[in-house]
This record gives sequence, structure tokens and C-alpha cells, in this order.
Amino acid sequence: MQYHLDRVSTGDPAISQPSGAIHGATDAVDVLIVGCGPAGLTLAAQLAQFPDISTRIFESKSGPLEIGQADGIACRSVEMFEAFGFAEKVLKEAYWVNEVAFWRPNENGTGLRRADRIQDVEDDLSEMPHVILSQARVHDFYLEIMRNSASRLEPDYSRELIGLTTDPGADYPTTATFRGPNGETEIIRARYVVGCDGARSKVRKAMGHDLKGEAARQLWGVMDILAITDFPDIRLKAAIQSADQGSILIIPREGGYLVRLYIELDTLQGDERAADRGVTSEMLIAKAGDILAPYTLDVKEVAWWSAYEIGQRVCDAFDDVPDTERSFRTPRVFIAGDACHTHSPKAGQGMNVSMADTFNLGWKLAAVLRKQAAPSLLHTYSEERCAKAKELIDFDRDMARLFSVKPKNEIEAEQFQSYFKKHGRYTAGVETRYDPSLITASDEFQHLAAGMKVGMRFHSAPVVRLGDGKPMELGHTIKADGRWRLIAFAGAGDNGQSGGRIASLCHYLEQDPRSPVTKYTPSGSNIDAVIDVRAVFQSSHREIALEALPHLLLPAKGRYGLLDYEKAFCPNHKSGPDIFDQRGIDRQSGAIVIVRPDQFIAKIQPLEDHSGLERYFDEFMIST
Amino acid sequence: MQYHLDRVSTGDPAISQPSGAIHGATDAVDVLIVGCGPAGLTLAAQLAQFPDISTRIFESKSGPLEIGQADGIACRSVEMFEAFGFAEKVLKEAYWVNEVAFWRPNENGTGLRRADRIQDVEDDLSEMPHVILSQARVHDFYLEIMRNSASRLEPDYSRELIGLTTDPGADYPTTATFRGPNGETEIIRARYVVGCDGARSKVRKAMGHDLKGEAARQLWGVMDILAITDFPDIRLKAAIQSADQGSILIIPREGGYLVRLYIELDTLQGDERAADRGVTSEMLIAKAGDILAPYTLDVKEVAWWSAYEIGQRVCDAFDDVPDTERSFRTPRVFIAGDACHTHSPKAGQGMNVSMADTFNLGWKLAAVLRKQAAPSLLHTYSEERCAKAKELIDFDRDMARLFSVKPKNEIEAEQFQSYFKKHGRYTAGVETRYDPSLITASDEFQHLAAGMKVGMRFHSAPVVRLGDGKPMELGHTIKADGRWRLIAFAGAGDNGQSGGRIASLCHYLEQDPRSPVTKYTPSGSNIDAVIDVRAVFQSSHREIALEALPHLLLPAKGRYGLLDYEKAFCPNHKSGPDIFDQRGIDRQSGAIVIVRPDQFIAKIQPLEDHSGLERYFDEFMIST
Ligand SMILES: Cc1cc2nc3c(=O)[nH]c(=O)nc-3n(C[C@H](O)[C@H](O)[C@H](O)COP(=O)(O)OP(=O)(O)OC[C@H]3O[C@@H](n4cnc5c(N)ncnc54)[C@H](O)[C@@H]3O)c2cc1C
Ligand SMILES: Cc1cc2nc3c(=O)[nH]c(=O)nc-3n(C[C@H](O)[C@H](O)[C@H](O)COP(=O)(O)OP(=O)(O)OC[C@H]3O[C@@H](n4cnc5c(N)ncnc54)[C@H](O)[C@@H]3O)c2cc1C
Repeated sequence: MQYHLDRVSTGDPAISQPSGAIHGATDAVDVLIVGCGPAGLTLAAQLAQFPDISTRIFESKSGPLEIGQADGIACRSVEMFEAFGFAEKVLKEAYWVNEVAFWRPNENGTGLRRADRIQDVEDDLSEMPHVILSQARVHDFYLEIMRNSASRLEPDYSRELIGLTTDPGADYPTTATFRGPNGETEIIRARYVVGCDGARSKVRKAMGHDLKGEAARQLWGVMDILAITDFPDIRLKAAIQSADQGSILIIPREGGYLVRLYIELDTLQGDERAADRGVTSEMLIAKAGDILAPYTLDVKEVAWWSAYEIGQRVCDAFDDVPDTERSFRTPRVFIAGDACHTHSPKAGQGMNVSMADTFNLGWKLAAVLRKQAAPSLLHTYSEERCAKAKELIDFDRDMARLFSVKPKNEIEAEQFQSYFKKHGRYTAGVETRYDPSLITASDEFQHLAAGMKVGMRFHSAPVVRLGDGKPMELGHTIKADGRWRLIAFAGAGDNGQSGGRIASLCHYLEQDPRSPVTKYTPSGSNIDAVIDVRAVFQSSHREIALEALPHLLLPAKGRYGLLDYEKAFCPNHKSGPDIFDQRGIDRQSGAIVIVRPDQFIAKIQPLEDHSGLERYFDEFMIST
Repeated sequence: MQYHLDRVSTGDPAISQPSGAIHGATDAVDVLIVGCGPAGLTLAAQLAQFPDISTRIFESKSGPLEIGQADGIACRSVEMFEAFGFAEKVLKEAYWVNEVAFWRPNENGTGLRRADRIQDVEDDLSEMPHVILSQARVHDFYLEIMRNSASRLEPDYSRELIGLTTDPGADYPTTATFRGPNGETEIIRARYVVGCDGARSKVRKAMGHDLKGEAARQLWGVMDILAITDFPDIRLKAAIQSADQGSILIIPREGGYLVRLYIELDTLQGDERAADRGVTSEMLIAKAGDILAPYTLDVKEVAWWSAYEIGQRVCDAFDDVPDTERSFRTPRVFIAGDACHTHSPKAGQGMNVSMADTFNLGWKLAAVLRKQAAPSLLHTYSEERCAKAKELIDFDRDMARLFSVKPKNEIEAEQFQSYFKKHGRYTAGVETRYDPSLITASDEFQHLAAGMKVGMRFHSAPVVRLGDGKPMELGHTIKADGRWRLIAFAGAGDNGQSGGRIASLCHYLEQDPRSPVTKYTPSGSNIDAVIDVRAVFQSSHREIALEALPHLLLPAKGRYGLLDYEKAFCPNHKSGPDIFDQRGIDRQSGAIVIVRPDQFIAKIQPLEDHSGLERYFDEFMIST
């Protein structure tokens, strides 16, 4: 955490000074968000970082969520929480998924036995664990980030969207109508509207989009309970397939006692809907007991429960621009999260994918509204996230089918387990890979950093910060602040000394009028305000002379021109293989890794390829 | 964190339900604390955990500290913060002291050169780092713990203690008089008074105690600044001894830019006091510049500064019982922190030792007030902490002298460095060792756990929790909740199965009317309410059958009788040597480690020595 740059202030450094412009009551805003679920709150927390953008977020419920809904938080989401600054709170409260147990009937077809027990997340998949925490607490943390931001953003509750129209020519091209707490209507005009309003999204309907796909007719129940059982793996994630009673997924919950059960119910017939079955919590308890037999299950309290059918559905596009108009018009209305894709909760993706949607969208909206990037950047949101949603739907369909089909024999049961293992990377959220596009370069130079995949999220690794010798994660320098990162990995023998490639790169970036740093940084701003340049050297931190670093790696910032000592890093030799080995960086030539504000790798290229940097950014950035 | 035991509740689990009895306005209390410094707040946060104890804390200032004073937080203090539940907040905000640099003049006697650079804290000294954070923020975290406790304890500000009398026979034997915000007097009667009122303690004076020792006549200045310098180690802790301008200690501060300088000024003459010198911040800046030359120092903002003389002083006793009366009377008034010892800030001990004082006292007061322990337990506070204060004073005197003496040559300068290194363990706060006493056993069985020293703090090590496979620190199970821990390390081949030594121990503890668990646990309370039994096995967590564990390691708790799955642990084979090797536990015989509520090891003994357990506790515990 960096603070005290412009003055020494007292109190909690996470609470920003309120900005002059608090946009609370205005009815014409830059961005209007509909819905306070994980998608809406991720976007609101992101936009709240920019007090120059006016944002409002409306929610039909009368206050924050208190209980229920999703609870699975993939490694990738915890990485994102770190960027927002609340990962440590989630890690403290959450249940950590360390292992998964698989239970099946005994060889003779009766009872249950533990068939396997595996590590949930493979080593070095992420520096963050896979955890379980009530969605309500995730909401709370986002709300706190918003409240502490310079924008002091707070949701407007008890406001239901009832209409949305667009007038492309107007200054505020969208007009949204809400019904307020007393039935009154409230009209908000916005430059952009983002529908994060869940599976029955009004925003989606206003755009004329449909969720497409078929509902699998499998009925499932879910309940959060306090219970006593002699089933030994009750504090492990456990997939249990009984001989003829169906299957259960056990998800232990935060706090040491609470547990969630996903329980297989019947197949729905014809036009039947989940609600028609009149499912009750008593039915769920009875069914769970049958599946778990011969183990006992004595339920003491049901904190929350629900019954639903699994359906895999997705929208064709996540914005309001038809394919035929994409070349001449940019989007004004977006949808994100459950509004554009629904799937079973089995792989625990609901909350995660929804947050990933708006983490992708947030920085793009901010860049366009702050006039850093051309509006065409906004096309990449639907392109990128719609493709990923389709992948998820396919994955989820396979997964749900496998889960519901009774394994006929050992071989089929093992198939399920091996599928489950194989997809650990996928469900951890770290397999997302965007195709080459306006903002994702080809893999031409992938060989320079084989373990940092272009189009995938920047995979953190341990380093030591040169200035103060602090052992830390390199990825944790990438905060959700809308900035780009150029991470320069030095070639062999380059300690930043004058004449070396790092020094030349820094000199170019800081001095050359064609460099992206000089071109896109507004005058008067800190040199790292738009593009944050960092370097990683191969020598250990005691071997490098800080005073010989190029100026850009010790930049003078703020009203006093204080030096920022947090730009240069070295390998951490205590934590295992060094970062160059761990991430396959070419030790001879080094590399530049361009990282997007949402932590995805946009491009890898040689250190000396200055024009490559210009070509990349010139596609969509606007010079100041 | 364990919660949801008696019901599933929503919101932040760190915020306890308010207890029926909120003691805010009462004028007769169990414990009256005077002074809201680190000593007073540690005690208040500890007592706030027990809503059945009424506590008030009075402070003469009008509100919380905002800036200045101490900033060094030793590893041991961070361990204690973990027990209070806010270590992660400190770790996030603080500067981490990773290395120390030593600077001296060049061989020819001019300028400055880096003579050495060493790791600040040796490996495996603590699982926690040495950090630097404003004392004001530490206060804030304690205040938050108090506010969130069931007691909802808040300080009463603007209340200055002006008188204190004791009447040993009365129900509330002490009467304290305060001057309130408008000059009015307020009278509070208390069973116990703890003077945490700093170096000029009124409570100390009321007891008739004096600080003894001589003031070293060295004048020092300290300032927290924002500055630009070309001195390369400005973000490292750095001790600089110039050729003839004196010395400086650089302490980088939280946030990346702020830095504290401790600057040597002149020796005071005769009766002269620090104030007589008319020190100004300009003088400090000029002096610092001279010492740092030829490096530049351009100070942009002085956030806080102070000038003081170093004195090493300590009281003879920390309570109100003269030695001659110790056999027939127990203490009613205590002093803690700067009220009983003062020393230079050079070794960064002020805040740390003050907090350690009241962490030692807090659980003892609670145990006596809750009728778990005999009042004679209270004698051990002064015994233990006064001895440690005297050690500190001696250490500090040596340290301050070495720091102030101009090294005549390389050899003397190196002496300072080697002294500094040798005392790293001491300043980390982990060398504190209490002598054998009522509550500290002899080292008769030390060989059973060579790396867990009787009388020293329980040194954490990595383990895996059996129930959920979570990799974690064993020491982090020891919370500041006033409970004792019996940690049973299993002998070879013992997986908790029936007939083994762990099972026999658990059976004895749970069933035998003579066992400390049955004897001291009030009926109706959870079985771990007073003594929390945990076991560490030698087998890896996948090799142990949870269902075969003795009942005491899967205890039924709370109103539903839910099972607690967090009592059994296994080695963590991924994190280096396993805990048995790391802490020298006898693999053949195993051992019991009795840990006090303040995390100190009270006794080590064989697993099968049941009567040894009884003898230990029977000395001071009261059976229910
Ligand atoms: C009842 C329920 C149970 C669930 N159970 C599970 C589970 O067991 N496991 C799992 O993994 N996932 C579960 N999910 C799914 C998971 O919660 C979602 O995938 C995730 O919340 C998606 O986030 P989102 O922000 O896209 O949408 P949501 O979280 O659905 O948020 C949408 C928000 O928009 C608001 N809204 C809707 N319409 C309007 C309007 N017209 N005007 C204003 N506001 C509006 C809603 O009130 C809601 O707060 C459940 C969802 C629900 C609703
Ligand atoms: C001005 C100053 C500068 C310091 N600078 C450094 C430094 O640079 N480095 C360092 O390591 N340490 C420094 N210290 C020392 C460090 O702050 C102390 O060692 C530490 O705070 C001791 O904690 P304590 O709780 O025992 O006492 P204190 O923190 O002194 O707290 C005592 C509290 O009691 C209150 N009080 C006093 N008398 C009364 C009364 N009659 N009635 C009610 N309340 C009363 C005081 O207002 C104060 O809040 C400094 C201390 C001071 C006062």
C-alpha cells in the first residue's frame, strides 16, 4: 500500500479523502449500473476508483443481501480481490478448499466408501487458495471499498428498473426508468448502462436479447445447515454418489460448523418447473439422509435453502450493437453476469464468472470515459466475455451431465473423477484465455516468457522488492486502478546500469515523444498515472546498486517530487525456483510483458522493440 | 475463525452480539484502567473479551492518538496481534523491516560507505515479520476490537486521574478520582486498578513507587518526514555513524514515502533538561543533513518530531504489595508499560514491552475475577514483568551507550554491528523467558520438546489441520480468549486410535474427576471453555482416520452439540522440516505442552503423567 505521497494524513489509509464531486443525487450520470449482485458491485467498486466518473448503482431489493446464493470463490477471484484490496479479509473469514474427497458405494454395491481424496488446487496454479464464503460477505467487502473511495459511492436500494430506452444522438444516450420505494418513478439518463440484473434481466429484454440453450431437466436442492453427522469428510469438499439414492456435493462453509449440501432431486417431466414440485427443506433433509446412509445426518438448523433446475443458457452478445453495425457504432448498453449466462452451481462458477465479466468491462468504460481510449475498445467486452461464457456453458453441461448420471460401474465413476481433476484449472478461473484482438496481441513472442501466456491472466510469482528487500508477490503490484503495466524482465547481466537494455528502454519510455508513456500520460500527472513501468532483474537484491537505476524506475512523484522506490524487483531465492525459471522467462534476452488493467497479459515482446510498444497502444489509445 | 456455533448469524463475524451487561456508565467496576496507550489498550481489549467482567478505561487526552510516538512492532507483538485477531491489518499497512544496513565513514575517515547489510530477523525466529507502523494505528485496531466485543468497551476521554486511595477491606477496595472535561470530579470504585498512565504515572506515585536508575545525558531528536535524498538505503532500516557529526538511525515508515530519523544531538550538561536546549525541527533537519553528507536530504514536510534525553529507569515492583506482605495479601493496584520502565526508543521496545506487560496481566485478572484462579496468581505479574523490565534496562543501557559512542576505529564499529546482530532475537521480543514460579514449571522435561522452551512463548510452526486439510500455523490456534491450551504431541505410531497414549490422555481428561478439564470447567460450559486440548500427530493427514479420534478431539459443543473439527493436526510436509523436527519433539514418547492464555509455555511433561497435570493446575486453579 502506498500513501502519504502528497501529505502525511492520519487514520485509516484505506479511506480516501472524499473528492469534490460526489455524484449521489444527480440524474444524469456517466455510468448507470442496474443490480447489486457480484457483477454490479465489482463494476461499481471499480468505477468508484475514478472520482472523475459519475456512477450510480440501483437495486430493486431494499438492502444488501444477507444470506444464501453462491459461495464458491475461485483462486482467480481471490487474485482479483487482492487487486481491489480486500483479499486478506476474505482469506481470514472463508473456508479454504484444500482437498476433495470422492465417495462411492462399496464394491458390492452397498453403503459408501471413500474412493479417492485429492488436492483441490494443484501447486503453483495461483498464489491464492480456492475458498468458500457467503456471497453476502463478498458484497459487504465491495460495499466497503465503494464507501471508502473518493467517490463515496453507495447503492440506491428499493429501485426497480421498469424501462430503458436509447437515443444514440443524445449527450446521455440512455434513459432508464425506475419505480422507487413508494411507487414513484425516477428517471436517470446515462452515457452507459450496464445491466447486472440477474437471470431475469430487464436490461437484456430491453436490448431484445434472449438467453439461448436448453434447460437440462434435472432438479437440484441446496441448503446451508448446522448438523451433526458421523460422516468423516464433512469438513472436506466431498462428491458422494450413492448406489441408488442419487448424489450430493458437500461444501463446508466458513466458521467451522456450517455446511452446504447440493442434493440431486428428480428429473422434471414435460413442462414441469422446479416450483411445481413443492420442494420443502424437510424433503431436502430426508433425501440427503438417504444418500448419506449408512452415515447419520441430524440437521439442527437450516439457515437457507433453495430448489432449482439446472439450465445452461447464454446470450449471443453482451451489448446493444448488432454485428452488422459494429463497424460504425459503439455500445451504450451492456449486460453482465447472470443476465447473460446461467449454468449450474455445481462447478461454483456463478459468482466468479459474473465478477470476471465486469472486471473486464470496468477498466474499459473508465478508459473511454476518461478519454484515454477510443470507444471502439468497448466492443472487446462482448467479444471476450461472450466467447468465455459459451466455453463455460459447454463445460458446465458436461459437468452437470456427468454429475447426474448414475455411474454404472467403477469405470464410469472413475471417469467422473478424472474429468473433475482435469478441470481443476478451469474451475480455478485461471484458464481463461482471450483470443487475439484489438487489445490482445498474437503469440509471436510467447517464447520469451513461456509461462506467461498472452491472453491469460498475469500469473504472479514471488520476488523481492529492491528498495526495501521485501519478499512479496509480483502480481500484487497490479491493483484495480485502471492503469496499464509494462513489466520489463531484464536479460542476463543487466542490472539497470546505463547502456543496458533496461536503461535504454526506460530512457525511451520517459524521453521519446513517440513512447506510450509520454504520449498517453496527461501533463501534470505522475509519470506512472496511465502506464506503470516496473522491472525485474536476475541478480539478487543485494547485488544491485539502487542508485544506478534509470530515472523511470525511481520516479519523482506527487506535489513534492518524492521518489517512488517500489518499481524494481529481484528474484526471491528463498521461496523455491526463481521467477525467471518459474515463469519461463528467456534469461538471455529478457522480455516486456504488457499487462492490462484487469491483470490480463496483452502482449509479450522483446525489450528493444520500441516500435512494437507503439504499435500495440496506438490501436486504441488516445494521445493527450 | 470459528462462528455460527449456536446459530447462523449474518454480517461481520468479528462483531460479537452485545452482551446483556454493558457496563458503560457504572461507577463501581471490576477493573479500572488509567491511560489509553499501548499498555492500557492491550489490557482493555483483553478484558473486553469477557462480558462478565466490568471494565472501564479512562484517558486524560480528549480523543485517540493521531500521530507520532512509537512505531516499531516486534515479531512477538505481531504474534500477539494475531491472537487478538488483527495481525493481518497490521501486516497490510506496515513497513516490513527485512534488512538492516550499517554505514560508516570510508577507510580514510571521510564520507560514508555501506559497511554491511544483513537480514533483520533470522529465519524461523517467528512466523511473523518485524514491522513498523504508527502507534496511532495500533491504538485504532485495539479500539476496534473493544468496540466489536460483546462488552462494547469504549474509553472515557478527557478524564484525568487526580487521586487514588485503597481500603483493603472494602468490596471495591480502590477509589479513583478523575477531573472531567468541564473540571468536574468523577469518582470510580474498582476491585482492581491498573495504571497504564505512562512515564509520569499518577498511579505509580499513589503507590509510592519510584522509577530508579540514572538518565544517560544523551540528547536525541526524532522526526517523521517526507524528504528527497540520494542516500540509497532510505527504504532500509539503516544505522549511520558519521566520522564526526554523530549518528542517525533511519526507520522507513508505512506507505512507501514517510521515513523516521533518530538523530544524535549533544550531551546534556549538569542539571540541563532536554527542553532547555530549545530544539526545533529546523535544528534536527540541519543536523541530519550534516550526518548524512555527502548525501543530500531535502525535507519537504515534517509530520511529527520530538526531542528527548535517554534514561534507563525501572520500578522495584509493579504492584501495591510490599515484599514483606506478599505472603498474606494480594495486589489491588498495578502499573504497566512506561509507568514502570523507561528506556531509549533505539531498540524499538517501548510499545512492545508495554503491550507485553498487560498481555501478561490481563488473563490473570480475568481468571481471578471469573473465579477460575486464586488471587495469589496476581503476584506473578510483578514477579515476571519486573524481572524482564530490569533485563531490558540493562540491554538498552548497553545498546544506547554503544550507539552514542563514536567508534574510534573499524574494530569498535564492528563491535557495534555484532552486538546489534546478536541482539536481534532479543529485540524481536522472542527471548523473554520467565523463571520457574507458581505458574512456570522447571525444565525437568525440557528434553521432550527441546525447541519449545519452558517459560518462553509458544513458538509456532506450520501444520495441516486434520478435519479440513488446511495448511496453517499451529500457534494461531492460541487466541487471546483467556483459555489454557494442552497441546499433546503424539508419539510414534499413535494416530489417536483407542488404546494409544493420546486416546488414554483424552479419556482421562474428559472422564476422570481429578483431571484439570473436569475439575475446572463449569458445568454447562463447552468442554474446551477453560482448557482447550489439541493434538498433533506424526502421520500425514491422509493417513489418519478422523472417525477413530477420541471424543475429546471431536468435542460436541454449543446448544446443538455440533462437533468441533479443529482440534487435531498433522505435520505439513510441504513447508520444510516437519513440526516434530523443527521444534525438537521427542518422536518416541511425544509430549504435552501446557500453554498459558498469553501463549507462554508453562510446562512440558510426558503424555502419560496425568498426576503431573493435576499438580501443575492445582497450585492456583479453583475447582468448580
Ligand atoms: C436464489 C438464488 C440462489 C442461488 N444459489 C446459488 C448456489 O447455490 N450456488 C451458486 O454457485 N450460485 C447460486 N446462485 C447464483 C449466483 O448467486 C449468481 O450466479 C450470481 O449472483 C450472479 O451474479 P449477478 O451479479 O450476475 O446477478 P445477481 O446476483 O442475481 O444480482 C442481480 C441483482 O439485480 C437485482 N435486480 C434484478 N432485476 C432488477 C431490476 N429490474 N431493477 C433493479 N434491480 C434488479 C436483483 O435484485 C439482484 O440483486 C443463486 C442465485 C439466486 C438468485
Ligand atoms: C511524546 C512521546 C514520544 C515518543 N516517541 C517514541 C519514539 O520515537 N520511539 C519509541 O519507540 N517510543 C516513543 N515513545 C514511547 C512510547 O510511545 C511508549 O513507550 C509507549 O507508548 C508506552 O506505552 P504506555 O501505554 O505504557 O504509555 P503511554 O503510551 O505513554 O500512554 C499513557 C497514557 O496515559 C494517559 N495518562 C497519563 N496520565 C494520566 C492521568 N493522570 N489520567 C488519565 N490518563 C493519563 C496519557 O495521556 C497516555 O495516553 C514516545 C512517547 C511519547 C510520550
